[in-house]
Amino acid sequence: MKRTLAIASLVVLTASTAALAQSGPKPEQLIKWRQSVFQVLAWNGQRIKANVEGTTFNREDVVKAANSTAAIANSGIGALFAPGTETGKGWHDTAAKAELFAADSKVGTLAANFSQEATELARIAASGDQASVKAQFGKLNQTCKACHDEYKAKD
Amino acid sequence: MKRTLAIASLVVLTASTAALAQSGPKPEQLIKWRQSVFQVLAWNGQRIKANVEGTTFNREDVVKAANSTAAIANSGIGALFAPGTETGKGWHDTAAKAELFAADSKVGTLAANFSQEATELARIAASGDQASVKAQFGKLNQTCKACHDEYKAKD
Repeated sequence: MKRTLAIASLVVLTASTAALAQSGPKPEQLIKWRQSVFQVLAWNGQRIKANVEGTTFNREDVVKAANSTAAIANSGIGALFAPGTETGKGWHDTAAKAELFAADSKVGTLAANFSQEATELARIAASGDQASVKAQFGKLNQTCKACHDEYKAKD
Repeated sequence: MKRTLAIASLVVLTASTAALAQSGPKPEQLIKWRQSVFQVLAWNGQRIKANVEGTTFNREDVVKAANSTAAIANSGIGALFAPGTETGKGWHDTAAKAELFAADSKVGTLAANFSQEATELARIAASGDQASVKAQFGKLNQTCKACHDEYKAKD
């Protein structure tokens, strides 16, 4: 089922991308939105990190952050990498490498991995066990890193 | 139940705020994150708007955008308005008015209204009816406007 969901996401994503390229927001707006998306993910990640590494575990805070992360991960953020956004400035110059937009890009697969692990983190967060949340948070971070290593320019 | 949830959110939010004020991220980071949150909400809003005003209604796209909006609305964004963030620059100078941080601020109530209407939009989006989504999207936007009118400086 996960695979079906991932493929369905990509199909919708492609359709959205095509629509945006025709008449949607300008590239600079899309880049600003995607940079914002990653900031919100960073905020949520920081909250979860503080809870799984700390002496106290605020389950409700972790659930909120994990639910937000999963919903964003499954919201079709690939549309924010529409044609025309290969270069340009949102809040700052895009850090996306040209390879992300190439025909042989594996970004769809990497994004699907991210969605899957984020969805799983939200599921596990609801159970409230710090150790299992920590383990799954580690898996999620690996999917972030995999994509950044491949497609995000170094600072 | 909605009221209970809203109150619970505010309690958690207050606890998070206190924690952040002590040892968390710097004010500039919090301001950057909250500005990013509103950008992601704007992205989702734009997607829903295009669908409820257009001739075609992409239910899956609306569900994704509504789920993301609801999850963010319920994620405790009040923590991003922690003490110390009354002024300052994230991506740009904060547009939050001083009144938002005042003791008699109604921002908690307005934020709870936003969360409630966003949660309701996600519920209605799942049913897939364009007219009912459009009506609820209108209600949600009123809660955005209510808060902006009161606490956001004009451009």
